[in-house]
Amino acid sequence: MAFGWIDGQAEARRRAGLVRTLRPRPADSPLLDLASNDYLGLAHHPETAEGAARAARTWGGGATGSRLVTGTTELHTELERELADFCGVEAALVFSSGYAANLAAVTALGPHGSLVVSDAGNHASLIDGCRLARGTTQVVGHADPDAVRKALGTHEGAAVVVSDTVFSVDGDAAPLAALAAVCREYGAGLVVDDAHGLGVLGDGGRGAPHAAGLAGAGDVVVTATLSKSLGSQGGVVLGPARVIDHLVNEARTFIFDTGLAPAAVGAALAALRLLRREPQRAARARQVAAELHARLTAAGLEAVRPDAAVVSVRAPSPEQAVRWAADCRTAGLAVGCFRPPSVPDGISRLRLTARADLSGAEIERAVRVIGETRP
Amino acid sequence: MAFGWIDGQAEARRRAGLVRTLRPRPADSPLLDLASNDYLGLAHHPETAEGAARAARTWGGGATGSRLVTGTTELHTELERELADFCGVEAALVFSSGYAANLAAVTALGPHGSLVVSDAGNHASLIDGCRLARGTTQVVGHADPDAVRKALGTHEGAAVVVSDTVFSVDGDAAPLAALAAVCREYGAGLVVDDAHGLGVLGDGGRGAPHAAGLAGAGDVVVTATLSKSLGSQGGVVLGPARVIDHLVNEARTFIFDTGLAPAAVGAALAALRLLRREPQRAARARQVAAELHARLTAAGLEAVRPDAAVVSVRAPSPEQAVRWAADCRTAGLAVGCFRPPSVPDGISRLRLTARADLSGAEIERAVRVIGETRP
Ligand SMILES: Cc1ncc(COP(=O)(O)O)c(C=O)c1O
Ligand SMILES: Cc1ncc(COP(=O)(O)O)c(C=O)c1O
Repeated sequence: MAFGWIDGQAEARRRAGLVRTLRPRPADSPLLDLASNDYLGLAHHPETAEGAARAARTWGGGATGSRLVTGTTELHTELERELADFCGVEAALVFSSGYAANLAAVTALGPHGSLVVSDAGNHASLIDGCRLARGTTQVVGHADPDAVRKALGTHEGAAVVVSDTVFSVDGDAAPLAALAAVCREYGAGLVVDDAHGLGVLGDGGRGAPHAAGLAGAGDVVVTATLSKSLGSQGGVVLGPARVIDHLVNEARTFIFDTGLAPAAVGAALAALRLLRREPQRAARARQVAAELHARLTAAGLEAVRPDAAVVSVRAPSPEQAVRWAADCRTAGLAVGCFRPPSVPDGISRLRLTARADLSGAEIERAVRVIGETRP
Repeated sequence: MAFGWIDGQAEARRRAGLVRTLRPRPADSPLLDLASNDYLGLAHHPETAEGAARAARTWGGGATGSRLVTGTTELHTELERELADFCGVEAALVFSSGYAANLAAVTALGPHGSLVVSDAGNHASLIDGCRLARGTTQVVGHADPDAVRKALGTHEGAAVVVSDTVFSVDGDAAPLAALAAVCREYGAGLVVDDAHGLGVLGDGGRGAPHAAGLAGAGDVVVTATLSKSLGSQGGVVLGPARVIDHLVNEARTFIFDTGLAPAAVGAALAALRLLRREPQRAARARQVAAELHARLTAAGLEAVRPDAAVVSVRAPSPEQAVRWAADCRTAGLAVGCFRPPSVPDGISRLRLTARADLSGAEIERAVRVIGETRP
């Protein structure tokens, strides 16, 4: 029977204890949130919500068409201009998600005959971008500029190097300056996904490429999402105007996708303006992460030193990671739990996110719960 | 230099007259809109906008995480329940876009060793889904159940047939009942994209699969978008509960993507409730399309008889299509213009969308402008 093969896989998942289930949350959840990617605490800020509400009232519930037909409102253009200005690049292009932005950037910049060099720890959306690109992908070791150099040395013609700036699972940073230097040696382009850097790293949250002195470089393209620090939904590609024009003309997830809903545009714009007014939020998120790490380590837990606002804590096994996260939840604390197949290295961990609006008491409580529930 | 190859392509586009540019629209555009996919006129309905605004105020600007971490609110579950109920299926799963929903359905249902049979006229997102799927894709002639039968006959093991229900360029319908019959002969699954059917076809807009008697079938999976008839943003997969569970566990564009923004969920939910209260909107959209077609044909234009709410009018050449659309715009009418490489058959056309809220006078005006500006 059609789809009969699904049941075997479901049974195998059940036996392996790897079933994923959805847990709808109420609007007034009593849990202390260290699981979301709302790094700056802006998703629930009244100005963000009001930005969404106002945009929906003015522009309607949806963009009504592809960005190239009816889906570009003046609000989209306003957000693109302000994002480009904030990040110090020539131009920006907004997508319906960060996932779509990554598919667009990698496919449009990795054409037939080109080489795409991809970090082994890259996000699923970059990996899917590599698989959809017409170029040849070479996967290289994690955060290893020498491996990138070796890969670039094997190829004549157009090449592009693709990397997260902050890796989503462990929260470690890519060696951006070294990667850019290697790219320049070979005349290759650099595409970096700043999903977990924008709003957290760099001057006032301008992102990891800005911090690395790469903002506005002609050979660097930055992708990011509006769904983490900016508390909304959507994605963006930031870079030289000619690259953005190229995406408008060639990127399938731009051309054949409905434009981002006005409410999401309005929310992101409000959050961006708030961040510009309160740039200390970025530093505070980093400070909370450092404090979480220091306290967890002091409690004898194995936590990775955070380069941004993600703190990863190792668990002995997938089953124990799941039980640990569940016990935290029972004790009133929401934490992320990453395990196979969502981790590149097979190591299960709790994933904590540092929010700029966590108080000292909340940090203390979180660390206490995690320590008390450890396997 | 990095990205230097882009300039050659840009120059070639310029020479061929195929440059795409964004045209931001103001909130109070004076143009008569026959270009958007707002088939039921719900994107700008106050209830839709209010649904978005209320959701943003209650739930925040964004979903804050993957649907499997913090990104599932009770509002998401409510929308999924009401969509499943409306379409007569067991379960529904909401995505950040229709594009993401299609990538999810095709990749998760076309695993290694399977055959994926894909209509030559399918939407870009289904094509990208086929390219990402681990199964082997066989592209078959447009709307040709015999070609599908032949393809299925060549394969042992799991197989899935993938088709739009209403093709986005010409607005013609797929032979759904015949496709389902062929699939059943071979025990294959059927995945259909009802992006342009939901809200327009079937009893009260329940969609093309409902109209074809396939609602709730165990071997049929329906994808759709919330961005057209429902005037919002987002996508949905509708089908048997086991298939939806499978997607929750396996679909990368579900697992590794931030949940749909609450405002978009709220807008879609409001629009769906409005449609249930005013089911005549669906029939009215079809009636407007039929009237447009009849009047255009009477005026001597070559228009495809519409099966849903898209009316396609042939243009003699890409250049003339572009000029025709521009002349319509100058005369106060927004129409879509499809040309290579966005058309599967190389034929350029104007694409008109019938909105349920177009008045008789507006239809008359639209036909007059199109006739007066014809090349
Ligand atoms: C590194 C990274 N890139 C891209 C994405 C996708 O962005 P979005 O959720 O906005 O689609 C995510 C997470 O969702 C991510 O962690
Ligand atoms: C047939 C079809 N499927 C899927 C999509 C993608 O849906 P969305 O725009 O919601 O991503 C579209 C258009 O946008 C479409 O026309």
